[in-house]
Amino acid sequence: MIVLKNPNEVRKTVRDWKSDGLSAGFVPTMGFLHEGHAALFERSASENDRTIVSIFVNPAQFNDPEDFAKYPVSTDLDLELCKRSSVDLVYLPDSDTVYPGGVPDIELRVPGLMKNLDAATRPGHFDGVLLVLSRFFHAVEADRSYFGKKDYQQYLIVKEFAKMLGFPMEIIGVDTIRSPKGLALSSRNARLSDSDKEEALLISRALRLAESLILKGEKDPAEIRTVMQDVLDSSASIRTDYLEVLDANTLAEIPLLKGEVLLAIAAFLGPVRLIDNITVQVS
Amino acid sequence: MIVLKNPNEVRKTVRDWKSDGLSAGFVPTMGFLHEGHAALFERSASENDRTIVSIFVNPAQFNDPEDFAKYPVSTDLDLELCKRSSVDLVYLPDSDTVYPGGVPDIELRVPGLMKNLDAATRPGHFDGVLLVLSRFFHAVEADRSYFGKKDYQQYLIVKEFAKMLGFPMEIIGVDTIRSPKGLALSSRNARLSDSDKEEALLISRALRLAESLILKGEKDPAEIRTVMQDVLDSSASIRTDYLEVLDANTLAEIPLLKGEVLLAIAAFLGPVRLIDNITVQVS
Repeated sequence: MIVLKNPNEVRKTVRDWKSDGLSAGFVPTMGFLHEGHAALFERSASENDRTIVSIFVNPAQFNDPEDFAKYPVSTDLDLELCKRSSVDLVYLPDSDTVYPGGVPDIELRVPGLMKNLDAATRPGHFDGVLLVLSRFFHAVEADRSYFGKKDYQQYLIVKEFAKMLGFPMEIIGVDTIRSPKGLALSSRNARLSDSDKEEALLISRALRLAESLILKGEKDPAEIRTVMQDVLDSSASIRTDYLEVLDANTLAEIPLLKGEVLLAIAAFLGPVRLIDNITVQVS
Repeated sequence: MIVLKNPNEVRKTVRDWKSDGLSAGFVPTMGFLHEGHAALFERSASENDRTIVSIFVNPAQFNDPEDFAKYPVSTDLDLELCKRSSVDLVYLPDSDTVYPGGVPDIELRVPGLMKNLDAATRPGHFDGVLLVLSRFFHAVEADRSYFGKKDYQQYLIVKEFAKMLGFPMEIIGVDTIRSPKGLALSSRNARLSDSDKEEALLISRALRLAESLILKGEKDPAEIRTVMQDVLDSSASIRTDYLEVLDANTLAEIPLLKGEVLLAIAAFLGPVRLIDNITVQVS
């Protein structure tokens, strides 16, 4: 496994692979890797000759400086997990390499997909995501890039942005990995106490309860939202940030559920913000 | 000379050149080519093994539908000029190929360079420019791309945007080509009557007069603007759209001229909007 800090060296390495006829898959991460990331690496390894992982906590996408400062880092363990997961190249740049002269002032927006969810509650977040991804896509020049569907809105926005700008690369979404009890894996879970982790299970439980109601025929999004909210409100530790029932392809609100529906929650447990979602096919 | 309509075929052709160790230069155009474009082609041919030209009137960058509808087209003559100018590949897509499903809703902005000039008077214009260029840059994958400095703000914005997003490509600005009498060459000049063309000379005359005052020591931008405005106002046919004296690198207003200064004018002659500019080094 190669570890490189310079984007030009990354590009040269991948171009050498390509000239040997090898395909390349890319998984961008912010480190503190867990089995959710490993599932992305393995998916990439199964579909490409070479797999590239980036580890970079991107300051441009944190609207809350405290969240950035507290974002967990564990580079040695991350590199071990990459090695175990058949990763071929880790791109591990520092902030000065990615943003010489600081984070630039730029606006990158797909308005149709940025009206709600994290785009509404974290202003500037996705501009920063799209900025760093554009830089990394241009460094890596992979054939395919892999995104976890836990960050469902991010996956949709990146897919649409890459298509709009004509990046010669496929964007692939990978299903969320969960703990045996149902908690969506996230680097932020490391900041939860054991009792917080127990309370956090209510998030996925709310989603599953809503799913079962939809599968039984409930088509009123307001009703679904109320049921999910009641589950979250059963814990005094959980503060809801948003709770949405939307069209899973357009992220538009729908008066009556049909097609593929996204159930999405963001909630705080103390200072830690967790997100989770599932999609349900309405029959 | 090859002519291709499909971006994937263009990418394949250029990648074949690259794998043979050949460098590629790219000149995006909206057609109705003139000697100003030819200067860009020749500059590219002098610095690259292969030169690619795109011809596409981009609907996404016209804020005025009438301007789009009236934009002159002359594909056969354009292809002849390309052939004469050592162009190797012309990318000539239709609108459905560039924008399947229509022009997408996206915002691409470099706020620091979009406070004035064309960005202020043509809302959405540069979003459309950056959108089509991103698509074309990804189709062409050139080592260098060439932009006329007649569209000075466009050149600066594209250069900065490409750098911010990490396109592995150099953006090069090329000096404006003028008629013997000083009129900046533009495809829009074809819509001017002979007498309009004569009146239009006042634009470059205003710029030259301002330049001579600056070289003589005038440092007050308000004074320079007044002098330029007086020249334009001497014709009843000219309607000023904007007239600016700015820092040439940041496009910021400056209280006292210093460094490299941009003198920029946009003016209407009847329905035809012309732009011109020069930069002056203040001693």
